[in-house]
Amino acid sequence: MTTSTDHTAAALARLEANEPAAIDRLIDWLRIPSISTDSDYKPQVARAADWAADHLRASGFEARVLPTGEPAGAGHPIVLATAQGDPGYTGPHVLFYGHYDVQPVDPVDLWDSDPFDPQRKPAVPGGPGERLIARGASDDKGQVAMFLEAARAWFEASGLPAGGVKMTVLLEGEEESGSANLDRFVEQHADELRKCDVCVISDTGMLGRGRPAITYGVRGMAYTEITLHGPSHDLHSGAWGGKIPNPINELTKVLAQLWDADRRVTIPGFYDGVRDLSAEERSNWKNLGIDDAAALKGIGFPPEASVGEAGFTMTEREWARPTAEINGIWGGYTGKGAKTVIPTHASAKVSFRLVDDQDHEQIKDAFFAWLQAHTPPGCRWTLVDHHGGAPVTCAIDSPALTAARRAVEQACGVAPAMIKTGGSIPVAGLLKTALGIETIFMGFGLEDDRVHSPNEKFELDCYRMGARSHAVLIGLLRDGAAG
Amino acid sequence: MTTSTDHTAAALARLEANEPAAIDRLIDWLRIPSISTDSDYKPQVARAADWAADHLRASGFEARVLPTGEPAGAGHPIVLATAQGDPGYTGPHVLFYGHYDVQPVDPVDLWDSDPFDPQRKPAVPGGPGERLIARGASDDKGQVAMFLEAARAWFEASGLPAGGVKMTVLLEGEEESGSANLDRFVEQHADELRKCDVCVISDTGMLGRGRPAITYGVRGMAYTEITLHGPSHDLHSGAWGGKIPNPINELTKVLAQLWDADRRVTIPGFYDGVRDLSAEERSNWKNLGIDDAAALKGIGFPPEASVGEAGFTMTEREWARPTAEINGIWGGYTGKGAKTVIPTHASAKVSFRLVDDQDHEQIKDAFFAWLQAHTPPGCRWTLVDHHGGAPVTCAIDSPALTAARRAVEQACGVAPAMIKTGGSIPVAGLLKTALGIETIFMGFGLEDDRVHSPNEKFELDCYRMGARSHAVLIGLLRDGAAG
Repeated sequence: MTTSTDHTAAALARLEANEPAAIDRLIDWLRIPSISTDSDYKPQVARAADWAADHLRASGFEARVLPTGEPAGAGHPIVLATAQGDPGYTGPHVLFYGHYDVQPVDPVDLWDSDPFDPQRKPAVPGGPGERLIARGASDDKGQVAMFLEAARAWFEASGLPAGGVKMTVLLEGEEESGSANLDRFVEQHADELRKCDVCVISDTGMLGRGRPAITYGVRGMAYTEITLHGPSHDLHSGAWGGKIPNPINELTKVLAQLWDADRRVTIPGFYDGVRDLSAEERSNWKNLGIDDAAALKGIGFPPEASVGEAGFTMTEREWARPTAEINGIWGGYTGKGAKTVIPTHASAKVSFRLVDDQDHEQIKDAFFAWLQAHTPPGCRWTLVDHHGGAPVTCAIDSPALTAARRAVEQACGVAPAMIKTGGSIPVAGLLKTALGIETIFMGFGLEDDRVHSPNEKFELDCYRMGARSHAVLIGLLRDGAAG
Repeated sequence: MTTSTDHTAAALARLEANEPAAIDRLIDWLRIPSISTDSDYKPQVARAADWAADHLRASGFEARVLPTGEPAGAGHPIVLATAQGDPGYTGPHVLFYGHYDVQPVDPVDLWDSDPFDPQRKPAVPGGPGERLIARGASDDKGQVAMFLEAARAWFEASGLPAGGVKMTVLLEGEEESGSANLDRFVEQHADELRKCDVCVISDTGMLGRGRPAITYGVRGMAYTEITLHGPSHDLHSGAWGGKIPNPINELTKVLAQLWDADRRVTIPGFYDGVRDLSAEERSNWKNLGIDDAAALKGIGFPPEASVGEAGFTMTEREWARPTAEINGIWGGYTGKGAKTVIPTHASAKVSFRLVDDQDHEQIKDAFFAWLQAHTPPGCRWTLVDHHGGAPVTCAIDSPALTAARRAVEQACGVAPAMIKTGGSIPVAGLLKTALGIETIFMGFGLEDDRVHSPNEKFELDCYRMGARSHAVLIGLLRDGAAG
């Protein structure tokens, strides 16, 4: 077999030659309004799935468009495609995950053009390069297209699907509407999916223009809703104030104890499974040059508003430390003016961001037990587990991650920043929990891509870096770099 | 001049002889739907005012029906009536306050009869005595009628308005709709009203059937609304959780510090002006035989839910101690399911019940200063003063209160329980603040009178005790008992 390097060069050449057609293809895909949250768009969502399956088939994949939901077809379909791999391939079986559904376009009057009539404009006004403006341009059709075109180029260059790499592609149609059917789908196809060794997702961002990044960790989450019940009916605060537990008073007093003076979460066992940060990782992150003061200014805060768990920087707090946040609270009278009520109950939505080996089920149980241990006299709790997801961290020295780093560096001419994100990407948690596989996020979005907002865009320079990176990664995998 | 005792006996005889006509008069008044909150009823409210003025004129009072509001007449009228007093009268100038407006009747389908077609029914099913069922039967037309008929009986017995006692009567038409114009009215008529020495109000309750009570203290109030502002826009808790002050987290942490471990309010200076309870008062209250466990059971609480400021009984906490209560709280996402938001702000309604010499303005200012001193980094507060009212306590040994006690005892054959209430009666606070006069609450309602609810009723035994008590009080005042 020809060396990977030769073939990679050929694939990159195909990619370059194909680019005008590739952009036209992406524009075709973006014209399909695959809005998954709105059932009026069900046929268009299905059309976007078929479009992707056809693209993969043209690159030699065996592609199926599989119904989801109960009854089958109630949900939006999942595109599941496979490349069997060259018989001589010894590298990892890669799962590429992406999604072909898009966010709604409201408020549509804030768009400068039809969200589903993609426009090519200068990347920055008066500057070089181009941007593609459309709903889904970045999130996630544009980023999936990088992979699709890399696979197509490799097929053209090598005659082999995915250039001979063992690969499974899973494109979801419900990512923007809560992935309601993904868990079940993964469960139903576990035998097939469990053959995968590592997942690659292109749905994240770079550190800035020309600063590619690989995200090797996301936080998990446990999201709860809690209600403290007191008296059997609303009371007059004149008659009862100061005599019995007011559920609002008591709820604030309990929740306030969630953190100690160092802003560490006080739930017993909460930090079990949280790994210490290595000096190397801390140093790497520090050297990324993230501008904390600018980030704070962007949300209206002075530098002194940087508060969090003692002993950690802002970046460390986001990427490597678990948190507890109250996302909502309500109780009693919340209308205009005054009402002297002591209500029957008060509620809060409390979520935890988790890292490393924290288990969201254990954390939820520990929180609920902690609340029970803090029950005010005569009161009771109702506790709802909204959902959870595992944190996912890819070991910094894993072969697949190392290959991805090298791929981005070779493709872009600059080493990628190795970053994490404080957010949670449910699919990564699901894949880890259900299949035991880690995820590498090799995304090329920019912070100003306006995902979920009017005038969403994707810059062609980003597309190009991403497509090249995927192509080089395929070459490195063939080469056994991540074997 | 004939002795008061003779005249009191004559007045009581008139009262008894008049009773059938008096009940018919009250029924006439109750037929007028004087619902002050609903502008559709404005003519009926005015008619109810005229009705009361006519009643007072028939008893020799000079009565005026005065417009309120801006422009004049925008509000409901106030009936202001005076009895100049006998030249030889040396006792206090008494202000009788009541209100002739009533609550709305919704939900009207829960009434067993037309709320404005008064019905006479047995006081308790199958038992002796009668009840009058109508909106306003107890609150407050029925209780005002006790005074009106006592005054009428005295006029008939002595030929003097109010039996020669110096008296001003103020009947409000907006008590059930927030007394929006009362402050201004009192201010405008301050010269006239300031001549009064003490106020008597019949709008409270007894301890139970056959257990008359005088309420000699009500708590004041300061009602605030506070908002803690953090980031300039809603944030994603994945990106920002654990890095900056979440206004909900911070609000709960600040509010939780409002109380110490003994459930005492921690605001500096909060207890300035709170008088120590005398051993005698504590003993008196203890001997009232109030059943705490039964009261708790009535609101669904076990006995251990009796929590409040350390060192005080439930009754003492309600009647003699100030409190801080959160009456409402809201912030972030409060809809169904999960949203991982860190909101820009979080809010609460916080009220304080005040006693003795606490000043609601000072308390509000102290609370706001305390909040400012507890401002989380980078955050700011907006603070709204909704309203306040002074606590009012009539000295237990004041001559007027002593006369009222004696009056009830002589009229009812049983000494009244001397009680307070934890509620706030704004008019009492207003009269104290604006005119410097204390209020005695000599009310004869029962807890099951269903005021503000369907099937409101007033028992004729209560009416009788109240009318007789007012009549005897007039006699004692003439006698110089409260001189």
